Amino acid sequence: MPGKLLVIGGAESHDAGDDAILERFVLLAGGSEAHLVVIATASESPAQREKEYAEVFHRLGAGRVTPLRLEEREDSNSDLAVSAIERATGVFFTGGDQLRITTVVGGSKVDTALHARLAEGMILAGTSAGAAMMSSTMILGGSIASVSTDSVRTGPGMEFLPGVLIDMHFAQRGRLNRLLSAIAMFPHELGLGIDENTAILVDGDVFEVLGAGTVTVIDAGQARTISASLSDVGGPIALCGAQLHVLPAGWRFNLTERAAIKRSERDHAH
Amino acid sequence: MPGKLLVIGGAESHDAGDDAILERFVLLAGGSEAHLVVIATASESPAQREKEYAEVFHRLGAGRVTPLRLEEREDSNSDLAVSAIERATGVFFTGGDQLRITTVVGGSKVDTALHARLAEGMILAGTSAGAAMMSSTMILGGSIASVSTDSVRTGPGMEFLPGVLIDMHFAQRGRLNRLLSAIAMFPHELGLGIDENTAILVDGDVFEVLGAGTVTVIDAGQARTISASLSDVGGPIALCGAQLHVLPAGWRFNLTERAAIKRSERDHAH
Repeated sequence: MPGKLLVIGGAESHDAGDDAILERFVLLAGGSEAHLVVIATASESPAQREKEYAEVFHRLGAGRVTPLRLEEREDSNSDLAVSAIERATGVFFTGGDQLRITTVVGGSKVDTALHARLAEGMILAGTSAGAAMMSSTMILGGSIASVSTDSVRTGPGMEFLPGVLIDMHFAQRGRLNRLLSAIAMFPHELGLGIDENTAILVDGDVFEVLGAGTVTVIDAGQARTISASLSDVGGPIALCGAQLHVLPAGWRFNLTERAAIKRSERDHAH
Repeated sequence: MPGKLLVIGGAESHDAGDDAILERFVLLAGGSEAHLVVIATASESPAQREKEYAEVFHRLGAGRVTPLRLEEREDSNSDLAVSAIERATGVFFTGGDQLRITTVVGGSKVDTALHARLAEGMILAGTSAGAAMMSSTMILGGSIASVSTDSVRTGPGMEFLPGVLIDMHFAQRGRLNRLLSAIAMFPHELGLGIDENTAILVDGDVFEVLGAGTVTVIDAGQARTISASLSDVGGPIALCGAQLHVLPAGWRFNLTERAAIKRSERDHAH
């Protein structure tokens, strides 16, 4: 995947001087040469979201910003929409309901075009629901009350980033238990809890952390004991010996090796 | 420490049929032979808390329940209060503000008597603030927004349970980041995040989990990298390779070996 993914944990700042995440997106999409497409399909107020993001992207120096309104599946299969994606150097998915994205865009010609443009080097960004949908399996909902077999609902995502399960608004909504519930049941997936106003920038198999909060990585691959039975609906889950990493801005993580890269190692490399 | 500690994550159920935690307390204190003392010093409404706990403990079959009103330090140094503790088979601290407990009870004759009775086999229980104060270092407050050097405030606790840092209402208030902030700075302490209506029953160096939620154990003792600088106030913390365990009811954990004990191992042992 030559293109980059920018996966934002929701509530990223749009304020001048505190907009490092969105600034990075505009920069990586080409700055004054960028042609950005904003897709607010997940939102209940798409016109408002499109306007907000167009304003901030213009302020950050983006060359062109095109809102692409996809409300029905026929929109996502239209030649007009496909050609907008084909011209884009960066596509941004707003927050809202991730099932809106999969049901309106999933499997459409726009979906195919997004994957093709990503392979060609485009940057794909999303916040909140627009970020959750990027993994092969996405979290649809759940409970923070306990770690149990019915504390989390998952479904297939848009498959831009395989091998991970992403949870958004992680610290602010206290979502450790629901991410742990998912990772305990599916320990082949790596759990990424992304705080608000925080993002990961994925380039190949390495991501870098951006923004104000931290990214919590849960790796149950080497866990010694996981006790979860789907025949016991709502039953408790025990999980012993998962690895936990907390990464603030500037730190990187290798998704293939499942290992953090010290900031100093990176600094020496450059 | 021959006595037992019951450390409750707050909001334990008082409802008949869902009161396993408080029922265990009454049972371990002697049931119909129990002489329970309720200390609501942490609360802003001590009379109401005393009444609520007296009702539920009586319903659960406790022989005697005595509210012990400690409002000022002179109350905690009175002979009357000391003799109430000396007769108690179980003492229960309600929730509220943990600084009320340390400032009113800490270092008093009641404090000394509590430690003495615990050594003689009494059970000491506490919920929320009444649980947070049990460790040698307690969490006083903090922020859930990020893992940083000023995301958590700690202070000396009442030292009934050394070697751990306890956080309460863990899942419900999303306190992972503040517990991680503390453990990253003080990795010799074991982090225990106790969900609401959930408790640990500590007997020697082993605790057992009770209740509806889970206990999240954060062990940074073997972490590969911790990057925290107190000279950088509010600076981000990186933490790589902490161990994480999630334990539902029935599971046990050895605090000395820092290892979970499988439910089956326990079941075979009994």
